[in-house]
This record gives sequence, structure tokens and C-alpha cells, in this order.
Amino acid sequence: MSCVGHQAAGTWRHPSSQASRYNDLEYWTQLAMELERGCFDTLFIADVVGVYDVYRGSAEGALHDAAQVPVNDPFGAISAMAAVTQHVGFGITAAVTFEHPYLLARRLSTLDHLTKGRVAWNVVSSYLDSAARNIGMEKQIAHDARYDLAEEYMEVVYKLWEGSWEEGAVLRDKERGVFTDASKVHPIKHEGQYFKVPGFHLTEPSPQRTPVIFQAGASTAGRAFAARHAESMFILATSPESARALTDTIRAEVAAAGREPDALKIFTLLTIITGPDDEAARRKHEEYLSYASPTGMLALYGGWTGLDFASLDPDAPLEAVENDSLRTTLESLVADGQQWTVREVIRQRSIGGLGPVLVGGPQTIADALERWVDEGGVDGFNLAYAVTPASTTDFIDFVVPELRQRGRVQTAYRPGTLREKLLGDAGGQTRASHPASHWRQHYVGQESVADASGPAASWA
Amino acid sequence: MSCVGHQAAGTWRHPSSQASRYNDLEYWTQLAMELERGCFDTLFIADVVGVYDVYRGSAEGALHDAAQVPVNDPFGAISAMAAVTQHVGFGITAAVTFEHPYLLARRLSTLDHLTKGRVAWNVVSSYLDSAARNIGMEKQIAHDARYDLAEEYMEVVYKLWEGSWEEGAVLRDKERGVFTDASKVHPIKHEGQYFKVPGFHLTEPSPQRTPVIFQAGASTAGRAFAARHAESMFILATSPESARALTDTIRAEVAAAGREPDALKIFTLLTIITGPDDEAARRKHEEYLSYASPTGMLALYGGWTGLDFASLDPDAPLEAVENDSLRTTLESLVADGQQWTVREVIRQRSIGGLGPVLVGGPQTIADALERWVDEGGVDGFNLAYAVTPASTTDFIDFVVPELRQRGRVQTAYRPGTLREKLLGDAGGQTRASHPASHWRQHYVGQESVADASGPAASWA
Repeated sequence: MSCVGHQAAGTWRHPSSQASRYNDLEYWTQLAMELERGCFDTLFIADVVGVYDVYRGSAEGALHDAAQVPVNDPFGAISAMAAVTQHVGFGITAAVTFEHPYLLARRLSTLDHLTKGRVAWNVVSSYLDSAARNIGMEKQIAHDARYDLAEEYMEVVYKLWEGSWEEGAVLRDKERGVFTDASKVHPIKHEGQYFKVPGFHLTEPSPQRTPVIFQAGASTAGRAFAARHAESMFILATSPESARALTDTIRAEVAAAGREPDALKIFTLLTIITGPDDEAARRKHEEYLSYASPTGMLALYGGWTGLDFASLDPDAPLEAVENDSLRTTLESLVADGQQWTVREVIRQRSIGGLGPVLVGGPQTIADALERWVDEGGVDGFNLAYAVTPASTTDFIDFVVPELRQRGRVQTAYRPGTLREKLLGDAGGQTRASHPASHWRQHYVGQESVADASGPAASWA
Repeated sequence: MSCVGHQAAGTWRHPSSQASRYNDLEYWTQLAMELERGCFDTLFIADVVGVYDVYRGSAEGALHDAAQVPVNDPFGAISAMAAVTQHVGFGITAAVTFEHPYLLARRLSTLDHLTKGRVAWNVVSSYLDSAARNIGMEKQIAHDARYDLAEEYMEVVYKLWEGSWEEGAVLRDKERGVFTDASKVHPIKHEGQYFKVPGFHLTEPSPQRTPVIFQAGASTAGRAFAARHAESMFILATSPESARALTDTIRAEVAAAGREPDALKIFTLLTIITGPDDEAARRKHEEYLSYASPTGMLALYGGWTGLDFASLDPDAPLEAVENDSLRTTLESLVADGQQWTVREVIRQRSIGGLGPVLVGGPQTIADALERWVDEGGVDGFNLAYAVTPASTTDFIDFVVPELRQRGRVQTAYRPGTLREKLLGDAGGQTRASHPASHWRQHYVGQESVADASGPAASWA
């Protein structure tokens, strides 16, 4: 995320942390090169348009610890990172509730061109109330209506990306003097409940046309959306066992939507703290926790859960917390049967966000990751940092070699677009089973831009 | 402009033209480095959200010759260009009619951070009808209402950029563990006719806070907007004499708006074709014209003038054109008293857009530019290319040395932000006379984020 504190609260204060350099282009270009050194598939950039203002009823705590605020536009640094890398993909978060599809489609196509087909779009349909208020809505659109709107939004952008410019429309023919054959460009004539877009896409077809579609919503409506549209999905699970229940459900829903079992890759959120061995990793975790910020943690969890923890006595044991929602939420964060005070939970969970924290040397971490894949049924991991870029560098230096030795991660990139790399397909465009593909040939034979032309004199 | 044919129609076919590489990041990074070699102030990226569809009632002509379509998002390549340069500015076009100010403010602040204060925003309030239709409006908002909306839009973004985060709000204090002092961050509580934005800016103050404001509208309402807000204005004039009338008017309007005479820089549109001497330049112009495209030219002029030239007989002399609007428009393009046929005008004016074309060696061009400055009263030039990047390279190789010898252009960049470079001011933020500055101290002493916070337990 283009901010200081993403999933960890307070660790920006660690001496090695570069988090507060998020405004510096060099931070991003170095991070992208580092990810490519580790053969990471994608740099995923989360986003919120709004602030976490549940804790104590204001954004003070979030501001104090830079907990996802200030936050920059996730599109800003992409082309700089693309210029210094060749393979790593860029997953960019953008909501369907705020920007018009005619404009967002162009924004994403432009980056898919400039990155030579390395863009993924994390489709977000839910947002903070504070975001909705600042763009002039009193509250968020009701949850289910948001997914109706999202469904129509996807139809519009698919029509623009896949249907409006036929394959072969762009000739770039310097000899004949034809750049685009207008008989192969089609107005999409979209008239729906939310949007009306009569024209054609402003951008010529990019390497992937439709960027790889990411999704992260875990609600029933969110999962239904993912089952239809997503090619990568981010989940949240506390253990391989609970991940298995979720991945089985998701894969069944993908099949029910008429798509292949491998059409959707599932990535689970983890924070990994590692080092040369278990003891070094444990010490590093403890050292990181000495920078943990209760204020930032409570701001983040307030936003995520909608619960204000401000009224709690820090030194009360968990079982003494009278408010049921607060107590069960805190218990779920440390579910290990031990005795904890509120303060201890808050400190311990200042790192890792809502996801598990794995602490250990290369073999311990590799063993754990294998269980998440083999028993949990996930395809991979959405790794958050405890300290940036140290968490990334440590993972690459300590864990990647072990995983390579076990044959569990790639040692070089596949050629082609991000979609080809992620799904292993040839071509680089959406699969036949994906709803975008429906529109690819849809307008062929229908009205083209050339059909609408009036007569003209000959200028030959 | 992030397209193939901007002001010249058909010259993308020239063997040396790189115009059709507009999707390639390297084209942009090389162009930016080239501009910096010539000490250009700014790369100005025009934009249209829509297509030129007046000629023959369709976009066929525009597509055929890539006349401003396809067109990419002007924001896409900025950070890549910033990463390979240190000084050149980036003028980005964005409309106030399409994207919400809360979001556009963040997008521009992000790039102002990543470029270290090198961003200008070309504020556009008018657009093509085809653009309005594709984002769900039947027609454009009426012209004057657009400027009302633009005025309120500016108020919102100024409040966000200048007022909501006080100087000193961001501490980045690793020792004390305070990133932002929330008592210095203020909700803007904007409630207007068009927008309602209660919160504070999502981005911390960037080097310039408000990006340098560009404007290009020449209507009475457009000029009034520029007189109040613009720090650079792009004009269109056919001669130094006609420029003088316009620059005098604009400077009087700037003074009437309470701003200093040098608070607004005026740049006039020119296309320059040059070489080692006049004869070489003349031959180059002729050679370029052999690639000129009537179709693309008619598409562009159709969009710019709203007139469809399709009915004309190419071989008619100008005076035989019966339609008054068409005849006077064509006459104005070549106003030199010679005999022209329609075909000849169209060919001749396929290069240069609506602006003058200067053809000559270094001294001829430098003499002409001096007249535009000394007699026309302009501060500088908005140079369009005939062939890209050859027009830029030629200007730097042939004309810049001559202008440097005459002491007319900079030989090195001033330090500081784009605003400091352009206006010569210290500091880098808007002048006291600029309406943005009104908001800089406006919220100090008023409600802050911290004031809204409820009680909390001590976590010390």
C-alpha cells in the first residue's frame, strides 16, 4: 500500500524501516527490483479511499501512527517500477463505486500497455463510510446493490476492453497510411441501470486486454463475484484447516460458475518473520514488537472490525472484558488457550494485521508454507511486511532458497504477460470460460465506426 | 499527448517518426531526457476524453490517421519519466467535470511527491460532446455552468492541498513515535453547490502542495478563470501582433484579479521546423508535407471547429466555397493573400494544428521567436511536433544554441520545484496573491482531527 503503516502498527519506527519513504520513487523502484530478484509474481498495492476513524471516534490514532493514512494513489509509481523491471506484475486496487468505467478502463489499459501486459486490477466494491462521505454520498451504497453495480461495471469494461476493437483493427501501416481500420472498431452501445456508454474504448487493445482480475471480498456476494470474475483471490484464514474449508468452498463456486478448477488462484494473507534459524527469527519478532504501537493497532482493528476498543482497561484479563463483541474479537486474535491481558493482545497483534504471523528459520517457514498449500489448498501467499523492505529481503534471502530446493517456487519467470505467468496459459488473454471472453467477438459483424460515416469527396 | 497524431496529421508515417511507439515506456523516458538536455521547463501532456467525430459524422477519419485516437491516460508514464530526470516538469491535463476532486487531488499530490515537486495540472473544464455522452451525460454541461463548477472544484482542491494539513503536522518522529500530529490536521467541511467533502486530504503536503496551475481556454469565461487561477496559460495566435492584443488583455485581467504582472506566464502554440539553414528547413517541411494526411487533418479540424468539411470539392478554389463558415475558416488557416484550392489548404495545414508553423534555420527561427516575445508579449512557447521526436531534437540541436548565445533561454535549471523554476519565486508554494494561498492558514485554530477524539485508556 502506498502508505507508511499497512498491516503492522508502529514498526515504521524500526531503525531499518524505509516505510516513511513511501513518497520517494526510489523506494518503489528498489522494492520492485527486489521482488523480481525473488521471482515474486506480483506486487499487490492495496488502497483505501478514506480513513480509519472508529477508534475513539476520530482519525487521530490512525494519523498518530500513520496507520494507512496518509495514503497515496496506488497508480502513481507503477510506470517507474515497470521501467526498471521486466517480469514482476503490478496489482492495483481501484473501486467500482467512485470512478466512471469509461475512464478507469483507459487508465488500466494505459498501464497494461506501458508495462507490456503486467497489470492486474484488484476490484473493490466495498469501502469505508468516510470515503463515501467525502465523495458526496451520505453512506456507502448498500452491500448487495454494490455488487449489482459491480456486475454492470464489469460488463462495461469488458465490452470496452474485449469487444470494441477487433483483433487486427490496428494496422500501424506506414506504407498504406492506415493506422486503424475503423470497420473493425465498434461502439459498445451500453445502456444499463447504472451506466450508459455508447462509444468505443479510447485505448487500442493492450497485451492482456482485460488486466488480470484480483478480488478480496470474503462475503457471500464477494465470493460470488470472485467465482465469476476473479483470476486471483486474496483470502484470510487463521490456519491451514480453516483455509481448507474456504478454498474448498471457493473452488466449488468457481466450478459452479462454469470455470476450470485452476482458473482462479487463491492467495492467503501471511506475515513472515524469518532469519538464519528459529531462534534468530524469534528474537527478531520480539525486537519488532518493541516498536509496536497500541494506538495504531487499535486504529487499524477499529476500521477492520467496526469496533471501538477505546473503553477497555488495558490491564484486564481477556475473560474479564464484558462487551461480548470486543472479547470474542480479541480472543480470536490469539486463539491459543493461554492467559492474555488486553494490553498483551494488542501488543502481540500490532504485527500481522488480521492474518497469521509465522516466525521461524527457513525450514520451519518452508514446512509451514507447505502445510498451507497441501492441507489448506491455497495456491500461494499474500505476504505483508512487518518491517519494509527487511521482511521482503529476509524472505528472499532465507526462505526462497529453501523453497527452491524443495521445488516449491519458480527459479525463473515464464515468458509472456502476467496472466500467462500466473495461470500458465498461452496467449495472455482471458480464458474462454471467463465472462470477459464473451465480448471478444461479440461486436464482429455489428455496426462499426465506419458504417456511421457520411459521404466524402476523394482526397487521393 | 499520449497518442500518435496530436497536432500534425499523417506524419506518423514519416520513416523517422516514433509516434506510433506511444505505448512504449522507453519512448517517454527518452523524450523526457531529451527535453531535459534542452532545458525545457515542462513536458505538457494534452488529453481528450472522447473522439473527433464531426468529419463525415463519425470517428472513421480520426481512427484512420490516429488523430488523437487511440489516446492513453496522461498520468500513466509520469513516474517513469520522473525516475530518469531531475528537473523537467510534467504538465498533466485533467478535467474538473469527470473525476471527483477528493480523488483527483490525491492523484496529483501523489505525483507531486514522487516527482519531488515537478507537477503542473492543466485544468480543463470543456470537453467533447462524445466524452460527455460516454460518461452518461446527454451533452456537455452548459459552458458557463462548467466554469461555476470549475470554480467550486478549485475551492475544494485548494482546501485539501493548502488547508487541511498544517505546516509541521507531519513529524516522522521515530523517537517519540509520532508520525502525524492530528491537532494540526483539519477536516475541510466543504459543503457547496456541486460537492460535499467533510474530511481532510488523504495525502500529506507535497513539495508544491498545489501543483502549478495551467489553463488553456480562450473564451471570456476561460480567461476569467485563468486570470484568477492559472500560473501558466497556453494561447493560440496567428502572429505576434494578434498575440499582443491577447497578452495585453490577459495581463490586464490578471492585474484586475489582484495578481502581479508576472504571476501568470503566457505560452503560445507553435510548430517549428528547423535545420542547419533556411533551405534545409524548407526542404524538411516539404518532405514532411508529403506524409500529410487530408483525412486526419479534416478529422482534427472538424473536432476543433465543429465544422464538417466533407462536402467540399477538393479542387475548388477557396473563394468558390459557398458555405461562409467553411470558407472563412479555411481562409484563416492560410491568411496570406495567395490563391489556394481547398486541397492545397488541407495539405499545407496538416502540420501545425491551429497554430503557426515556423520554418527556417537557427537565426530565422530565433529572430521570429524574439518578435513573439518582444512584440507579442508572450513569455514562451508551447511547441508542438511535426515529427516526433525529430522536431524536439532539431529544436534543441539547432535553435537552442542560437537562443543561448542571445541570452534568451536558460543554460541550466534553477534549483527547486517546478513553480520556483517557472516563476522564479523562492519557496515553491503558491504566491500570496493566488487564491490557493487563502486556504493555507485558514483552518489553523479551527476544529482539528484530535478535537473529535473521544476518551481512551492509557496504553503507555
